[in-house]
Amino acid sequence: MPSAGHLQAPALRVRSSQVSAGRPREREALAAVPLFQPQNLREDQVLSLEGRPGDLTCKSQRLMLQVGLIHPASPGCYHLLPYTVRAMEKLVRVVDQEMQAIGGQKVNMPSLSPAELWRATSRWDSMGKELLRLRDRHGKEYCLGPTHEEAITALVASQKTLSYKQLPVLLYQVTRKFRDEPRPRFGLLRGREFYMKDMYTFDSSPEAARRTYSLVCDAYGSLFDRLGLQCLQVQADVGSIGGTMSHEFQLPVDVGEDRLALCPRCSFSANVETLDLAQTNCPACQGPLTETKGIEVGHTFYLGTKYSSIFNAQFTNVHGKASLAEMGCYGLGVTRILAAAIEVLSAEDCIRWPGLLAPYQVCLIPPKKGSKEEAAAELTGHLYDHITEAVPQLRGEVLLDDRTHLTIGNRLKDADKLGYPFVIIAGKRALDEPAHFEVRCQNTGEVVFLTKRESWNY
Amino acid sequence: MPSAGHLQAPALRVRSSQVSAGRPREREALAAVPLFQPQNLREDQVLSLEGRPGDLTCKSQRLMLQVGLIHPASPGCYHLLPYTVRAMEKLVRVVDQEMQAIGGQKVNMPSLSPAELWRATSRWDSMGKELLRLRDRHGKEYCLGPTHEEAITALVASQKTLSYKQLPVLLYQVTRKFRDEPRPRFGLLRGREFYMKDMYTFDSSPEAARRTYSLVCDAYGSLFDRLGLQCLQVQADVGSIGGTMSHEFQLPVDVGEDRLALCPRCSFSANVETLDLAQTNCPACQGPLTETKGIEVGHTFYLGTKYSSIFNAQFTNVHGKASLAEMGCYGLGVTRILAAAIEVLSAEDCIRWPGLLAPYQVCLIPPKKGSKEEAAAELTGHLYDHITEAVPQLRGEVLLDDRTHLTIGNRLKDADKLGYPFVIIAGKRALDEPAHFEVRCQNTGEVVFLTKRESWNY
Repeated sequence: MPSAGHLQAPALRVRSSQVSAGRPREREALAAVPLFQPQNLREDQVLSLEGRPGDLTCKSQRLMLQVGLIHPASPGCYHLLPYTVRAMEKLVRVVDQEMQAIGGQKVNMPSLSPAELWRATSRWDSMGKELLRLRDRHGKEYCLGPTHEEAITALVASQKTLSYKQLPVLLYQVTRKFRDEPRPRFGLLRGREFYMKDMYTFDSSPEAARRTYSLVCDAYGSLFDRLGLQCLQVQADVGSIGGTMSHEFQLPVDVGEDRLALCPRCSFSANVETLDLAQTNCPACQGPLTETKGIEVGHTFYLGTKYSSIFNAQFTNVHGKASLAEMGCYGLGVTRILAAAIEVLSAEDCIRWPGLLAPYQVCLIPPKKGSKEEAAAELTGHLYDHITEAVPQLRGEVLLDDRTHLTIGNRLKDADKLGYPFVIIAGKRALDEPAHFEVRCQNTGEVVFLTKRESWNY
Repeated sequence: MPSAGHLQAPALRVRSSQVSAGRPREREALAAVPLFQPQNLREDQVLSLEGRPGDLTCKSQRLMLQVGLIHPASPGCYHLLPYTVRAMEKLVRVVDQEMQAIGGQKVNMPSLSPAELWRATSRWDSMGKELLRLRDRHGKEYCLGPTHEEAITALVASQKTLSYKQLPVLLYQVTRKFRDEPRPRFGLLRGREFYMKDMYTFDSSPEAARRTYSLVCDAYGSLFDRLGLQCLQVQADVGSIGGTMSHEFQLPVDVGEDRLALCPRCSFSANVETLDLAQTNCPACQGPLTETKGIEVGHTFYLGTKYSSIFNAQFTNVHGKASLAEMGCYGLGVTRILAAAIEVLSAEDCIRWPGLLAPYQVCLIPPKKGSKEEAAAELTGHLYDHITEAVPQLRGEVLLDDRTHLTIGNRLKDADKLGYPFVIIAGKRALDEPAHFEVRCQNTGEVVFLTKRESWNY
């Protein structure tokens, strides 16, 4: 593309419509601002960003660097740029809806996690170099929480009069986690600092805990359905978290680091880690297993009393006796889901988002300055107002690409690369009476014309 | 109060109405869940929570521990419990609106901040023990970002073709910050791990940068106005951030750690740090200065080229020459604002919130089990549906206190302590035909009756 010879100027503009009802009108005047949305369209520029070209091995990492979604800060740590923050906030909203629909309550636990909690579970030693450790000014030791079983169990244990009537308790947070990966790679897919949703559940019996476990797994299923991602729930190893039952939610894709065994006959599916090396037949129906690779985007654990027994997280049971809570824990890789969705949905050169997560839903492209269609520029401005009036949900979701020194074609290529679900173009037919705007649905490739008679039709 | 002898059972229930339009209906059935909302109503229990009774020296800390808004994790680090997370998310929404109304774009920078960035500005040494430092598995040094001038300037500097036409750029984030305070205290007012909104601005000239500076200060003013907090903008010292002009946004209150000098005659106000020790008269009008204490909830800095010159953050000016960006940086203590608002607005024993931030807007109290009014219990359930139908903004904002083993009076005391703006009680008059519900407006003390005829009236 013509603009590939240099960094693309960040001059997309958005009108802020997030001003609350009670705010003064004049604020609107300030609303059209240039977006900081650097595009690094030349492959070699992207390579030099990472500084370690050998690691630039997956599509989502390359695309996200190219279009300015992320920028490297240090190995495995990325600045999330404005589009990514928008997508992540949309994802967190969907996660919140799913977690709250099953009774989840949101908490927020510190990243600084005292060593004594981790010594109590022996994970201070067993997690080895994966824990990032530090001392404060008084010499007290901490790690940066990679997960929070210790912290949440100690917190719930401090509630001395918890009754069985008050269970289940489902607590979750969406916070940064830290893991000192030996070799961080694949951009947001395997970082050292990343956002995770972690939920911890407390039940009064193993049966109740298993019901809660299913409930959370179903909510995860519902989440991935809503995102339009085909996710496999596979039997998994409990690893350093522990417990007696575990599942991973895997997005099948070649770049995935997990090997999955699937049975085409029955519903059996497992991470191969959980199978005997020699196992080639399905343990359920004895049919032959097939193998695929996957990206782990979620992981659930039935923990039993592993942590509640250590921290004495008790409740008063129906007989008035103190009893240990049955626990589960449930992770979703928030930043990882963003990258994994891009990995799975995108073409080689164009990002595609789950509809719910696209940073902006609509990109408006007015005519080029000095072109025959220039007279339609003003109409494009009005179109913005009409669209958000007709569809209030689109407020703040419509972007005006007013880089009118570029041709419509060039801006359309950029829009295609960024993956706005809808691109609206003021082309030749914008001068028709009434004006016709070309609407491109990026996911289906469909092109229709939008026109205003009484109301907008197409 | 009767329940003061033991920890209060967390049995408030909320109906989740945040299920999206497209979700299956049956999810609603799961929606009434017990809230994890521990109340530590006895003073000595609160003291034992902190483990350092001498430090329990302010109202917001005591109240927030008592009603289960926060729980200590380690010195200066707190678990934010569900009510606090709700209030914080509301605050972040208002902050987003204000920042985006002036063109702010949200980014998200890692907490792990490479030492070399801090060495470049000499702050690796000058910030001393306030920086929490660590090494990764390869021995590479990092600090946990207490602020992000270095990171953002290096990020913007990496955009090689920034043009004056694309300025100003206003980038902000709402993330956890870390400061190893010598003596963390006052709960969320002075912690070691806390949420901060930090904005960084890049302009093409000192004049433009000063306009941006005013714009951000005005947005801060607007934010505090909307929260109903009387905030003073005072002249301040630049401290370790540097620059040539600085203001603090201070909430005047006795527990505040800053000493402020105000002139009752003119608009002059300053942190006394910026004045000569002997100065007792206003430098502007020579009138006598009065002194008050304040909690710093925001801080703005005009930085000039202090950071852009170090990291070479340039843009192409109108003459086509490379020129250093003029910067500003602007902080808001997000968790601190929550605590400071509670400190300023609350009575000695009852929390009061800025209306916009109250975790729930309405608490419904149905009659006690076995009481004469018990027949009205079902009506209270319907009331929830009617209210959220009539006022859709209240969806997810109405809480049903179904601890019906407690008297209305006891639950009303709890509701008073937690500070719901509106409490609706099904008392004696709920059995009238039509039913009358008592509505208490907690902030004004007003009591009115709500009844349903054609629509709800009061």
